[in-house]
Amino acid sequence: MIQTPYLLFLGDAPDQLAAKVAIGIKDWRPENAVAQFRMSGCGADLGIADMSLQEAKHAGAKTLVIGVANRGGVISEAWKTVLKEALAMGYDLASGLHNLLRDEADLVATAAKYGGQLHDVRVPSVQYPIANGKKRSGKRCLTVGTDCSVGKMYTAMAMDAEMRQRGLKSTFRATGQTGILITGGGVPLDAVIADFMAGSVEYLTPDNDADHWDHIEGQGSLFHVSYSGVTMALIHGGQPDALILGHEPTRSHMRGLPDYQQPSLEELRDMALALARVANPACQVVGISVNTQHMSEAEAKSYLAEVEERMGLPTVDPIRIGSGRLVDALMAL
Amino acid sequence: MIQTPYLLFLGDAPDQLAAKVAIGIKDWRPENAVAQFRMSGCGADLGIADMSLQEAKHAGAKTLVIGVANRGGVISEAWKTVLKEALAMGYDLASGLHNLLRDEADLVATAAKYGGQLHDVRVPSVQYPIANGKKRSGKRCLTVGTDCSVGKMYTAMAMDAEMRQRGLKSTFRATGQTGILITGGGVPLDAVIADFMAGSVEYLTPDNDADHWDHIEGQGSLFHVSYSGVTMALIHGGQPDALILGHEPTRSHMRGLPDYQQPSLEELRDMALALARVANPACQVVGISVNTQHMSEAEAKSYLAEVEERMGLPTVDPIRIGSGRLVDALMAL
Repeated sequence: MIQTPYLLFLGDAPDQLAAKVAIGIKDWRPENAVAQFRMSGCGADLGIADMSLQEAKHAGAKTLVIGVANRGGVISEAWKTVLKEALAMGYDLASGLHNLLRDEADLVATAAKYGGQLHDVRVPSVQYPIANGKKRSGKRCLTVGTDCSVGKMYTAMAMDAEMRQRGLKSTFRATGQTGILITGGGVPLDAVIADFMAGSVEYLTPDNDADHWDHIEGQGSLFHVSYSGVTMALIHGGQPDALILGHEPTRSHMRGLPDYQQPSLEELRDMALALARVANPACQVVGISVNTQHMSEAEAKSYLAEVEERMGLPTVDPIRIGSGRLVDALMAL
Repeated sequence: MIQTPYLLFLGDAPDQLAAKVAIGIKDWRPENAVAQFRMSGCGADLGIADMSLQEAKHAGAKTLVIGVANRGGVISEAWKTVLKEALAMGYDLASGLHNLLRDEADLVATAAKYGGQLHDVRVPSVQYPIANGKKRSGKRCLTVGTDCSVGKMYTAMAMDAEMRQRGLKSTFRATGQTGILITGGGVPLDAVIADFMAGSVEYLTPDNDADHWDHIEGQGSLFHVSYSGVTMALIHGGQPDALILGHEPTRSHMRGLPDYQQPSLEELRDMALALARVANPACQVVGISVNTQHMSEAEAKSYLAEVEERMGLPTVDPIRIGSGRLVDALMAL
């Protein structure tokens, strides 16, 4: 659908977390990331080449992907200057922002003038059903987090990659803009209408071979008051057989909510498992995925060992350590 | 906004539960319900006069309100024949269905021809914010149910009416089509985009006087896999100070989900309270509202007494018994 490779637009992202979309593409499909495009004041850096629109065009980039996720999603005038210049140069645009490219008259006009495509991957393209709760064949794994942006998608991507490397049946199921931009398909869950959320997850993870695992991309957190309803729909629509607990231990408060503290892994385990068993009484918590990117190697190893001892579950950072032990735990179910 | 009084269209509703919208209007604003209009095969009955379009028009009805809630929401051809006849007779139409009146070209054309209005109360009219989780002034009460359609709206309506009768500060906050049709305002929560659900509830229940209570209309159930995400958003966006547990004891399974059993009131209490305290650590479960409409007077009284003894909380059927003891419990907080 979307022409590759990409030039990844970081705009004036305030920090690295805000560039989650671009980072995901760079990490999981590096061959698609020709370069990054940063504006003045940009606080994010993918560690790949910075290029101008013209340079990236010469290097083969076909689509300018907006790799920045802002709360609420806004396409600023400063961004638009760049986006229109890109269209004039022959790029397509792709975006996962709430604020749609197709709703911006000047972008639509410019795209029409130069024959460029505007891809809004956040917009549902399907009329999803209301969830029916019927038990589906095949197996499903979902990562639930103590907070938003703790590495739930990375965990699912890593476990899927590990299973496929072992020759096992596995599919990554994208529920957010990054995953959809990376894999080319999925459900943009946070843009689905409330009544159809759980149904869209059922649609995304249909009947499958008994030994096939869907790795469903998690969203939000049961403990994040802005997005907990989305997480709930994933737990009930996904009817997971296995839950992975996701955690980022260096946060001082819940992301975007200065008055809220992260729950403990024990609280997350108990709450998520009780809710998951409504849809699938056989569900088990099988492991813990910790995002240790803000820790030293020694701190990370010590923290992982401490959590593993305390919780009695395989505990890894799938990026730093690998997800093999989580996959082992799935296979042992 | 919507012209009153109404003729309540029940169509070919399969059963009484499907006519929830019309029943709500008839019960809470009987002065607005001139009559009911039923088609052949209709399994619902409001216990008010049956009238033809012409008879109701002569009796003063201004708007034909579609008082039937179907799963998924469909406007059938059989319905349309009646709706177009009504428009031709000078009625406005109002509907809370997912399938919008404004999306039906023939209804739009007929309305335009005769100057009638099409009101789709389910469509959000506001760009809701993402929830910020900030503590708001004033008090909030939310009913959470063991299942859908157990009387959560009635409980909130009854408590609001009781408080206003006592001269206390109280507002019913509608989150569904019935409540919006009754009160003329609110948030059509099940039609809100996932990311903005909790924010829409914050918007609906803003800062208020310290001694003012919002009675927030509940939706779905944490234990109903089709709609649990909507319930979750109400619990976190509403940041309730008080929870009422809602229950309908005669169901053989969860509404629409034959493979799912209702949870116990204890399970509901523990799950809902733990989740509510994420947003409001002071939250308390203050009472239980049981829908005893399918029980005899003796069965109902015995059941209410048994639950009250078991749970240690004031337990009433607000319709059969009144909601006074629930309001007493709120005032005692």
